[in-house]
Amino acid sequence: MTSRAGEFDLIARYFAPLAGDGRVRALGLADDAALLVPRAGSELVLTADALVAGVHFLPDDPPAQVARKALRVNLSDLAAKGAAPLAYLLCLSLPSQTGETWIAGFAEGLAADQRRFRIALAGGDTTSTPGPVTIAITAIGEVASGAMLRRSGAKPGDEIWVSGTIGDAALGLRVLRDGAGAELPAALRDDLVSRYRLPQPRLTLGMALAGSGVVAMDVSDGLVQDLGHIARLAGCGAVVDEAAVPLSTGAAALLAADPALRDVALGGGDDYELLVAAPPALGPLLAAASQGAGTALHRIGRLVGGRAGVILRDRDGGERRLARGGWTHF
Amino acid sequence: MTSRAGEFDLIARYFAPLAGDGRVRALGLADDAALLVPRAGSELVLTADALVAGVHFLPDDPPAQVARKALRVNLSDLAAKGAAPLAYLLCLSLPSQTGETWIAGFAEGLAADQRRFRIALAGGDTTSTPGPVTIAITAIGEVASGAMLRRSGAKPGDEIWVSGTIGDAALGLRVLRDGAGAELPAALRDDLVSRYRLPQPRLTLGMALAGSGVVAMDVSDGLVQDLGHIARLAGCGAVVDEAAVPLSTGAAALLAADPALRDVALGGGDDYELLVAAPPALGPLLAAASQGAGTALHRIGRLVGGRAGVILRDRDGGERRLARGGWTHF
Repeated sequence: MTSRAGEFDLIARYFAPLAGDGRVRALGLADDAALLVPRAGSELVLTADALVAGVHFLPDDPPAQVARKALRVNLSDLAAKGAAPLAYLLCLSLPSQTGETWIAGFAEGLAADQRRFRIALAGGDTTSTPGPVTIAITAIGEVASGAMLRRSGAKPGDEIWVSGTIGDAALGLRVLRDGAGAELPAALRDDLVSRYRLPQPRLTLGMALAGSGVVAMDVSDGLVQDLGHIARLAGCGAVVDEAAVPLSTGAAALLAADPALRDVALGGGDDYELLVAAPPALGPLLAAASQGAGTALHRIGRLVGGRAGVILRDRDGGERRLARGGWTHF
Repeated sequence: MTSRAGEFDLIARYFAPLAGDGRVRALGLADDAALLVPRAGSELVLTADALVAGVHFLPDDPPAQVARKALRVNLSDLAAKGAAPLAYLLCLSLPSQTGETWIAGFAEGLAADQRRFRIALAGGDTTSTPGPVTIAITAIGEVASGAMLRRSGAKPGDEIWVSGTIGDAALGLRVLRDGAGAELPAALRDDLVSRYRLPQPRLTLGMALAGSGVVAMDVSDGLVQDLGHIARLAGCGAVVDEAAVPLSTGAAALLAADPALRDVALGGGDDYELLVAAPPALGPLLAAASQGAGTALHRIGRLVGGRAGVILRDRDGGERRLARGGWTHF
């Protein structure tokens, strides 16, 4: 279905060059659909996420970064499944006053990340909207048969690991929105903001874990809330050693200056790190996958029977819970 | 990624029951992704279309009909490819004031059409939006290897066929929006409006044509504009015998009362009929497919070399062109 006046011109100019022509044949976007030829012995992983201006990104964020964020939040879901990116479809709803410069920047962002993550545009739709820019992406990845990672199946006694660093994106939003961290060096503030604007999907690490049987998900709604999902599906609780939660230099500096932001870091979301639960015996496997992928994995706690929810434990053994886990909109 | 407060409750209550558990394992929508197990010897067809309130449907349209329209415009793309529906992903952006009644009605519409068209929900995302209801659907279908129909590859001399009737939806919108057809019996007006609100994807016919090598697309932007795409890809023009274009009783009555609406019928769009181009020798095959599917196919013209665009020919051989083909937004 079509809508926006000049849609065909826009597609031809900016999006047709992004169309896949390998395993996924997008037919130059000149057709209504793309063809995907499955590979024997593989299965497909399907995921979809939408971003709305003013809800998931700031209306004046650079369009190339918005495009990359929209693609990467989906790639992060593929990473959590251990899947290799294959193709994506894009539904883009644009206000009539959207200029061609914005569209060109958006397409440039997609092109850059398509090359980086080896994924091709398979199709989609552009429409007009009286509302904000809305970007809905469906991403399709591939795993060997039976190798997809799941978020269910963890057990009490499993160790909890998390990749990279936690809290940067949520703190970066506070920097952008509230002027937090004004006393920090500008470079550290910029690091936090860039983590908010541009997730780093942990695809290489996820693919290294495919087939290992570990439980995994990506941290999008905040470490505490997402770990809560794994624990609930496991029918138990989780204890997190707060001091073990990995922090970037910028996050550590900001939390030292304003300790009240600690719960933002742990509950804020938009991290797009991998959260993994695995029996202690799989520790060496996780260490090897981490080293092979060049992505740090930190052991931060353990699933515990007889308890519920996520308990944060400090250095002295004191326990607390987050008043309200998860992400809220600005 | 998540957003809307209470999203998990909404998903569990209304959308989890729609999740696939066969070839497509949506894991109760409790995971971030679904698994699709391809069938040996088959290929997948991918398509995506978005609907925006106030652009593609009227804000007070019944939610069940909106849901079914959103799904069916995608199913129509699968029909045009000869594909059998398999799964879909839904990104639903809702204003904060959307009531649970609306969401329940929307889910009911999806459930009804999932049963009817044998397709399952594989995943998606619900988000809040400060703008209008926005529905982005990616549909995945399946064809035997090499059997997908395309819109390119037609040749001068090919006959042009169209299924069902043309113009009903565009005229139905005029009835709704402008009060057109006030002199017609209410039942006829209702027929037109229901064609606007609820497309009838020609899946059975499309699947009967899969592998036949005919050229096909669905009529979404208007007969003239969409036929123009087939002709342009064929490097030629198309001549349509206006009197042969199939009209419903309601459309015929409305055009008799107001002949100025003829171009709305031919150029207005939202028909979701199949447009087919095939050499005359394939006429019997098309007739058999039409009979087997129980969907009428009408021969309305021919592709012609040495000309460009779409020419409408009247009973006396007079020729004209539509001033501006295709669909415009209300």
